[in-house]
Amino acid sequence: MASLAIETGHQEIHDLERNGHAEKAQWVLNAPEPPSLWQELTGSVRETVLPHARRFPTVKDKGSLSKTVISFLHAIFPIFCWCRNYKATNFKNDLLAGLTLASLCIPQSIGYATLAKLDPQYGLYTSVIPPLIYAVMGTSRDIAIGPVAVVSLLLSSMIPKLEDPEANPILYRNLVLTTTFFAGIFQAAFGLFRLGFLVDFLSHAAIVGFVAGAAIVIGLQQMKGLLGITHFTNKTDVISVMEAIWRAVHHSWNPHNFILGCSFLTFILITRFVGRRNRKLFWLPAIAPLISVVLSTLLVYLTRADKHGVMIIKHIKRGLNPSSVHQLQFNNPHIGEVAKIGLIVAVVALTEAIAVGRSFASIKGYHINGNQEMVAMGFMNILGSFTSCYVATGSFSRSAVNFSAGCETAMSNIVMAITVIISLELFTRLLYYTPIAILAAIILSALPGLVDLHEAYNIWKIDKLDFLACAGAFIGVLFASVEIGLLAAVTISFVKIIIISIRPGAEVLGRLPETDIFCDVDQYPMAAKNPQVLIIRVKSGLLCFANANFVKEKIMKLATEEEEGSKGKRTIQVVILDMSNLMNIDVSGITSLVELHKNLASSGMELAITNPKWQVIHKLRVANVVTKIGGRVFLTIGEAVDACLGAKMAAV
Amino acid sequence: MASLAIETGHQEIHDLERNGHAEKAQWVLNAPEPPSLWQELTGSVRETVLPHARRFPTVKDKGSLSKTVISFLHAIFPIFCWCRNYKATNFKNDLLAGLTLASLCIPQSIGYATLAKLDPQYGLYTSVIPPLIYAVMGTSRDIAIGPVAVVSLLLSSMIPKLEDPEANPILYRNLVLTTTFFAGIFQAAFGLFRLGFLVDFLSHAAIVGFVAGAAIVIGLQQMKGLLGITHFTNKTDVISVMEAIWRAVHHSWNPHNFILGCSFLTFILITRFVGRRNRKLFWLPAIAPLISVVLSTLLVYLTRADKHGVMIIKHIKRGLNPSSVHQLQFNNPHIGEVAKIGLIVAVVALTEAIAVGRSFASIKGYHINGNQEMVAMGFMNILGSFTSCYVATGSFSRSAVNFSAGCETAMSNIVMAITVIISLELFTRLLYYTPIAILAAIILSALPGLVDLHEAYNIWKIDKLDFLACAGAFIGVLFASVEIGLLAAVTISFVKIIIISIRPGAEVLGRLPETDIFCDVDQYPMAAKNPQVLIIRVKSGLLCFANANFVKEKIMKLATEEEEGSKGKRTIQVVILDMSNLMNIDVSGITSLVELHKNLASSGMELAITNPKWQVIHKLRVANVVTKIGGRVFLTIGEAVDACLGAKMAAV
Repeated sequence: MASLAIETGHQEIHDLERNGHAEKAQWVLNAPEPPSLWQELTGSVRETVLPHARRFPTVKDKGSLSKTVISFLHAIFPIFCWCRNYKATNFKNDLLAGLTLASLCIPQSIGYATLAKLDPQYGLYTSVIPPLIYAVMGTSRDIAIGPVAVVSLLLSSMIPKLEDPEANPILYRNLVLTTTFFAGIFQAAFGLFRLGFLVDFLSHAAIVGFVAGAAIVIGLQQMKGLLGITHFTNKTDVISVMEAIWRAVHHSWNPHNFILGCSFLTFILITRFVGRRNRKLFWLPAIAPLISVVLSTLLVYLTRADKHGVMIIKHIKRGLNPSSVHQLQFNNPHIGEVAKIGLIVAVVALTEAIAVGRSFASIKGYHINGNQEMVAMGFMNILGSFTSCYVATGSFSRSAVNFSAGCETAMSNIVMAITVIISLELFTRLLYYTPIAILAAIILSALPGLVDLHEAYNIWKIDKLDFLACAGAFIGVLFASVEIGLLAAVTISFVKIIIISIRPGAEVLGRLPETDIFCDVDQYPMAAKNPQVLIIRVKSGLLCFANANFVKEKIMKLATEEEEGSKGKRTIQVVILDMSNLMNIDVSGITSLVELHKNLASSGMELAITNPKWQVIHKLRVANVVTKIGGRVFLTIGEAVDACLGAKMAAV
Repeated sequence: MASLAIETGHQEIHDLERNGHAEKAQWVLNAPEPPSLWQELTGSVRETVLPHARRFPTVKDKGSLSKTVISFLHAIFPIFCWCRNYKATNFKNDLLAGLTLASLCIPQSIGYATLAKLDPQYGLYTSVIPPLIYAVMGTSRDIAIGPVAVVSLLLSSMIPKLEDPEANPILYRNLVLTTTFFAGIFQAAFGLFRLGFLVDFLSHAAIVGFVAGAAIVIGLQQMKGLLGITHFTNKTDVISVMEAIWRAVHHSWNPHNFILGCSFLTFILITRFVGRRNRKLFWLPAIAPLISVVLSTLLVYLTRADKHGVMIIKHIKRGLNPSSVHQLQFNNPHIGEVAKIGLIVAVVALTEAIAVGRSFASIKGYHINGNQEMVAMGFMNILGSFTSCYVATGSFSRSAVNFSAGCETAMSNIVMAITVIISLELFTRLLYYTPIAILAAIILSALPGLVDLHEAYNIWKIDKLDFLACAGAFIGVLFASVEIGLLAAVTISFVKIIIISIRPGAEVLGRLPETDIFCDVDQYPMAAKNPQVLIIRVKSGLLCFANANFVKEKIMKLATEEEEGSKGKRTIQVVILDMSNLMNIDVSGITSLVELHKNLASSGMELAITNPKWQVIHKLRVANVVTKIGGRVFLTIGEAVDACLGAKMAAV
């Protein structure tokens, strides 16, 4: 009697438990329908295009119409936000930072313009209009706008294929300006249509490799100025450039240029070393380029070294940016190519600017709005292309100087631009005797910062496949061309995503001691397997045509091997497939699942499924798989084990 | 005193719990190192290349050397396995199936040879050698080997670009034979190097669309025979073919051909309908094509209809397959193109054969070995190319007949091949008057089975993006070309994988009532959120450069929105990121994670991580993220909630 009561009690507990299980399994099976593809599409479009939808009150609310306009203006022109609280102390800091920035910016801009195969004044023009516009529209407080090395290299490596800069410099320049216009249009469009994620498609690893390769290529290009070579190659790959240098060294080069350039390069590098050791002297490396320019110009002027073969800048056109609206070449036969180059340049420029902006924003703890940044960059380049500027973006080296100099807002960019305007009006004649070798030295001195060996080692340590993308970009830029390097990096990055996503594999799970948690037995060696149940989890987020069959075979192999392992005695009765990893499944995946069920059944095993995600359970229901596998769908592995073994026991 | 005791007790339980938590967190943090990339690579190569490594004893074991050889031979020539148990009753069934098969195969082979723009006898040759070799080496019992429609179409749509079949039929034929050789080489290589997964890259959905498109294209090609058109287009897209038909209908066509073809097409379709209604009459549709050939040939012979414009086959060369070793064109200037076509044909042929083999194996409940199948297919095509056969593979329609006719082993293929040999020796002259329209009718009658509208609807119901791949293949084949259709299908399939893998998103989790299970609150509406804790799970299997930033912003938005939602009162103290979905993370993902931690910290929230997978926790440790986020890594969400809130309470 007592035993019967106990048995009944057991039975009741068992029933209760089973009811609990059944209820939870019902939760899984009766989940609401997931949003359809269409709903997801419209939802994500709405979310990306109108991320601030909730922040703007609707126009119906008449009283707040002016408020809406103001908040809209604030969003478009962030200067209105920070301007109101701008104080004299802020300005003092920004003034100092702006002046330091200008002293670095003027020689760099001239150097980058020559790197882009443009006249020197175009570099200065580009340091006037774009920084002013960015100051009004940008959201970063630390970024320093102007011409940068990588973009200059991109332009000078791609546009000469359309127009020879030496044979036809005016047409070449017009194409550069047109490219700038297109780059601006693309950047503004990315921002307006909230396509900021496109910039993310250049992975961090790829950028590290690409920039390092570009730095070496830029450095080799500077040999032209440093050695005073007159005829140089238009190609950018290492081998062609080395050949050109080799040929030049045997024919026409001038040691004066080399000695002059190297001495000032040494000087700049020493100041940088001093600045690094003593943080208070941060301004020393920042103004060293300007000092070099002044000293070397004086030297050449006094010694008349230009008569002895030292190449000098000569004429720089005086005066502010001229209009270039009529120089944009929309009827050029190469217009399609130009637009393509504009797109590449737009993406690379944005990538650099946003990386710079994010890293300093993260240090200071404020938020930069990626889409607004793109709009700002776009407008500054569009307006730049109307005013004789070529593509400007955020420079890493100058932003770092700006940051060290204690800038507080984008006002430092305005100060810098005004300083450049004054220089353009007053001091261009003074630069007549500036030796080209000094410009080369200034560019060369900025390059070591671009080759980030430490980061490359870090990437190698963390992720070998990421390092492959990094190395691919590096080698591509170095030995093929800039575009091929970029293409290699993007391709490797996406192939990596495919490989990881479809990599087939299955891990065996075991129960962690004294818990109801099931984990990979390889990752958690303390996890214990149940001899009657084989618990398997698919090792990828996607069960699709490319891996479903492999996964099926692997599971069958695991199931039959385990059986064989136990000396011919059949012990596995249930195979539980934990689907908690699976984000999605496709038609082939579903077919494989049904085949797996049939194969297991013909070997006398049962298949159970646990914790399918929303999309997955929906598809399994639509494809009728749930009924095909006998409704053995559970929320947790524990329940599945209990239910399946319980049923087996009952059957025995 | 008592309250103190209770408190102490509570404290103890709390301590115990915390110790338990700490221990489990240690399990997470101290997992053994995951296999390195190199180990995984070599491991997966070993596993795919030597899947049977354990089955063969090592050679050291001298006594079993002969055993090893035998088991090796059994693996290469499965016929030795089933031959020993082969009984007379088996043979009776196979004989019947083989004869039925032959009666369908002879007219189909002739038709497919004309579809491939070859002389009719080449179709018959292809039904001799390949089935014999497959019977010795193949592992499927039901597959019927020979020429098939889709492969014939592929050849006749790609090779004429290299050589005009009308201007230079011998060279064209030699190129087809060379393509067959390459296809065999590729197939055998796939099998030997265990690259079977390559065949999976054509997704089920893509195949459905591709085959349906190909069927319509093949059907349109048959209009040439059915209308008795002499000049036809070499292109395969619908528009060109329709134009060619339109032009022909207005100039030169013969109604006798059309009437003859249509009447026998109707006859074949009626027999099929009868066969479907009455399963016992399955042989009726199978022999209907042969009956049609005999009747129509007699009709033409008796009425001398060939004098009135009915086109007939005329001469079919008598005798067995001649050698074609010297006709392989390895010095042809198009050899690269030929190899490429060989690769495409190899993949398509394998895809069809393996799909056929798997589906019948699954019905009968036996296992076919994908790699051995590929080796068998490869050898049969290589040897076929030496004996005047073009590419053979498993035909779906004939395999179905074979299955219905009750075949038991590959012996039915041998019976069929012998029957074809006898026909080649004795009956080719009888086919002189066979009208070409009948061949067209036979091919046309086989096509409806290839357009699987039901499956297409199924795909649409289950997965809209899969349907896109299906539709892309269909439209590509129909309106562009066969290769473009294939390319479209493969591209769409892989783009889909990328989109699903990097689709950024985050789901909010809540605790299911009366459990310690945390689930997506959208999927499980009964899940309850804790106002102090925001639990988020990344909605993709990969946190990488392409989605990491988006995910970070999304989480920040969720965290700040939830805060705003609760009327300005800050309640969220902890953000728990459940990583159980994440298969892998890259350098950009890790950077984003650190940034997320900083951003949350500057808003006064803590970040905790739960259940990172093996690769992920390894990378987080290597990149020092675990210390950066204050060691808040837990095994389960429940523990993370308890630990974080507990710590917060203690701090208060």
